[in-house]
Amino acid sequence: MDRRRFSKTMAGALGASALPSSILFPREPRINGPRLHGWLLEMARFGARDDGGVDRVAFGDADIGGRAYVRSLMEEAGLAVRADAAGNIFARLHGSESGLPPLMVGSHLDSVPAGGNFDGPLGTLGALEGVLTLKEAGIQPRHPIDVVVFVNEEGGKTGSRIMAGEFQSWELEIETASGFTIGEGIRRLGGDPEGLSTVRAMPGQVAGFLELHVEQGGVLEGLGTPIGVVEGIVGIRRWNAVIHGSANHAGTTPMGQRQDALLSAARLIEAVNRVVTSIPGSQVATVGRIQASPGAPNVIPGEVTLSIEIRALEMDTIQEVIDGIGKEAKAIAHDQVTPIDLEEFYLSGAAPTDERFRSWVEGAAGELGLESHRMPSGAGHDAQAVAHFAPIGMVFVPSVGGLSHHPDEYSRPEDIEAGANVLLGALLRADAGLD
Amino acid sequence: MDRRRFSKTMAGALGASALPSSILFPREPRINGPRLHGWLLEMARFGARDDGGVDRVAFGDADIGGRAYVRSLMEEAGLAVRADAAGNIFARLHGSESGLPPLMVGSHLDSVPAGGNFDGPLGTLGALEGVLTLKEAGIQPRHPIDVVVFVNEEGGKTGSRIMAGEFQSWELEIETASGFTIGEGIRRLGGDPEGLSTVRAMPGQVAGFLELHVEQGGVLEGLGTPIGVVEGIVGIRRWNAVIHGSANHAGTTPMGQRQDALLSAARLIEAVNRVVTSIPGSQVATVGRIQASPGAPNVIPGEVTLSIEIRALEMDTIQEVIDGIGKEAKAIAHDQVTPIDLEEFYLSGAAPTDERFRSWVEGAAGELGLESHRMPSGAGHDAQAVAHFAPIGMVFVPSVGGLSHHPDEYSRPEDIEAGANVLLGALLRADAGLD
Repeated sequence: MDRRRFSKTMAGALGASALPSSILFPREPRINGPRLHGWLLEMARFGARDDGGVDRVAFGDADIGGRAYVRSLMEEAGLAVRADAAGNIFARLHGSESGLPPLMVGSHLDSVPAGGNFDGPLGTLGALEGVLTLKEAGIQPRHPIDVVVFVNEEGGKTGSRIMAGEFQSWELEIETASGFTIGEGIRRLGGDPEGLSTVRAMPGQVAGFLELHVEQGGVLEGLGTPIGVVEGIVGIRRWNAVIHGSANHAGTTPMGQRQDALLSAARLIEAVNRVVTSIPGSQVATVGRIQASPGAPNVIPGEVTLSIEIRALEMDTIQEVIDGIGKEAKAIAHDQVTPIDLEEFYLSGAAPTDERFRSWVEGAAGELGLESHRMPSGAGHDAQAVAHFAPIGMVFVPSVGGLSHHPDEYSRPEDIEAGANVLLGALLRADAGLD
Repeated sequence: MDRRRFSKTMAGALGASALPSSILFPREPRINGPRLHGWLLEMARFGARDDGGVDRVAFGDADIGGRAYVRSLMEEAGLAVRADAAGNIFARLHGSESGLPPLMVGSHLDSVPAGGNFDGPLGTLGALEGVLTLKEAGIQPRHPIDVVVFVNEEGGKTGSRIMAGEFQSWELEIETASGFTIGEGIRRLGGDPEGLSTVRAMPGQVAGFLELHVEQGGVLEGLGTPIGVVEGIVGIRRWNAVIHGSANHAGTTPMGQRQDALLSAARLIEAVNRVVTSIPGSQVATVGRIQASPGAPNVIPGEVTLSIEIRALEMDTIQEVIDGIGKEAKAIAHDQVTPIDLEEFYLSGAAPTDERFRSWVEGAAGELGLESHRMPSGAGHDAQAVAHFAPIGMVFVPSVGGLSHHPDEYSRPEDIEAGANVLLGALLRADAGLD
């Protein structure tokens, strides 16, 4: 059977028939679960901690070891492996049609300090497993497929942002959790900080990108749904709210004469919660940091600084939320005679996934008889940078207890297999559907 | 005229006649305002700062210099000066009736770091001025009158607490703002830390104690009233509220799935304010310190610790307020699934002033044509310790802007003179009225 026709036919049929596609296409390949689990277990040894987690920060020895291990798996799989000047690794399965740009699929291998075993490796090894499955099934895609390992995702999406042309040369001086600067780290991976301009991908150079990842939250587990269809990576804006009161003696200043910056802060924290939950949608707002000065039990706080972070799929929604908070802040400031300044200090644009990718992920899940749920990604991912030069799609699998960036991060074996199969199914659909 | 008869008659007349007492007793003495202002100015040179404030922490060189200066004034005034083993200084004007215990009047000379020029010296020098005025007017009191300088008020009311028998020997090891321990400091003042048991005063040994002090708050200024009649030094209790939430990713945790310890903290801070203001009275409650962990803009706070301080004239009122707060805390903890623990870490008993002293202060103010206002002292004072062994009274004068413990602390000359005259008038009334 012509593999190209197989894919094209399958993609067309999925929208057209109410019959389970497994009846129509019994030969759609399935990944090798035990092999994938074995790789993940092996990967967990690089930077292993006594508590079951990993310290595999980018550019450290464990990261270098883990990358070498995955490179060896790629080579054993018979893929054409190369690394770019940023240190990103690409393992190619050749496509059948000449002139088509590659499809990329993958994630990262580095962890946060005291991280878990799934954030990154699942998407990288899941992609490799899918491509090896295709190869073993004798299915050649139309597009070349590049399994990608991006450099230093946790420390600022370095590899994917270099590809996207977002990276600034001064960032080479940033010291990372490894103790090395990003520039030193790239050299340690065998890359060349002087040659980063060669890494950049322009729109059209990559047909599309798919990333499998653990959810890092508790939505899927709460719903009992195994597959998350990511609608996009949310945009993020962060402000400091500085509340100016009057520091005064807690014993000698009557309640009616106070300008208590912390009381105003409390009202503002409540307002943030009230405003963000009053608008329909999945946007979130968080006050994570607070400092009250002078900070003694017997002194009325004279100044409070707190952070406000808002995330939403649409930047307009973030604006709507901050406008609402600003209005409430003004009223609180007036009531309490405590002026409030809002100072923005961080912005990260939203990166919606491509609608075609969303339906391909849903289709692949449906093919496997798996329920899926559309949801935003509240966390940042390499796909967010890739969205600058190619259409993206993402698949989430549940995180037990919603836990991530933690040694206890865990996703169940059956969810991992389901996620890798959906990734493969979506990849085949993208291969069929994209030019 | 027999001075004893003068005093007795005056005290009796004050309650009995609606006529202004100045008509009945035109010879009631008045303090020498310019002399008192001169002493205060001279005192401000010990530990003077460029910004007009003072660094005259207890046991430091400036404190030692200031004490020597005041001792010299006491000796020039012809008083019998002695110091006890704690370093407290007593300057005695002898009384006319043998066998009567002394009346004490005074305050302290030490300041907080970067303090002002009135907190302490006003009460000490105002007392000395009053006693010197009596001496110059040839008025001999019935009781001996001791002008007292207490040691290290700002660092823990050391001198007065040693007199009260409250001081624990381990406190000798506490390092003070001077860099010296309390034990070393007492030696520096010429005292004897081994002999502190000789300092203790038992009930009956002192007839009564009067202290003049700046208000350190804005109540009198707000009312436009020159004299505060202190109802007592408030009791203080302090708790840490520990709020246990769940630290989680601010991007991936939907609003409805959060256990946000800081949101609960905000509601608790509001509850503290609501409960304390819902009960009639002058009690105050303050949240002055807050710590949220982990404390990053992109992480939902998992744990918050905040201080709750309540002050009231009656310990029962404090209990009523904390009971109300505890009830609200329970509801917040339940709503947000964030358990809240309240842990008490400080208690200081309330010290009501003696009702006779209150009316003597009011009487003295009335005699001078000055309005007065009954109010609690929200701050601690030496009188609080003295209350353990003698009846106490306190006179407040307005603090401009309510400011204290600050280089800009200021009280107007006319208020200072008024306060010193009221102190003297109250002292004469106490001398007449007490056994």
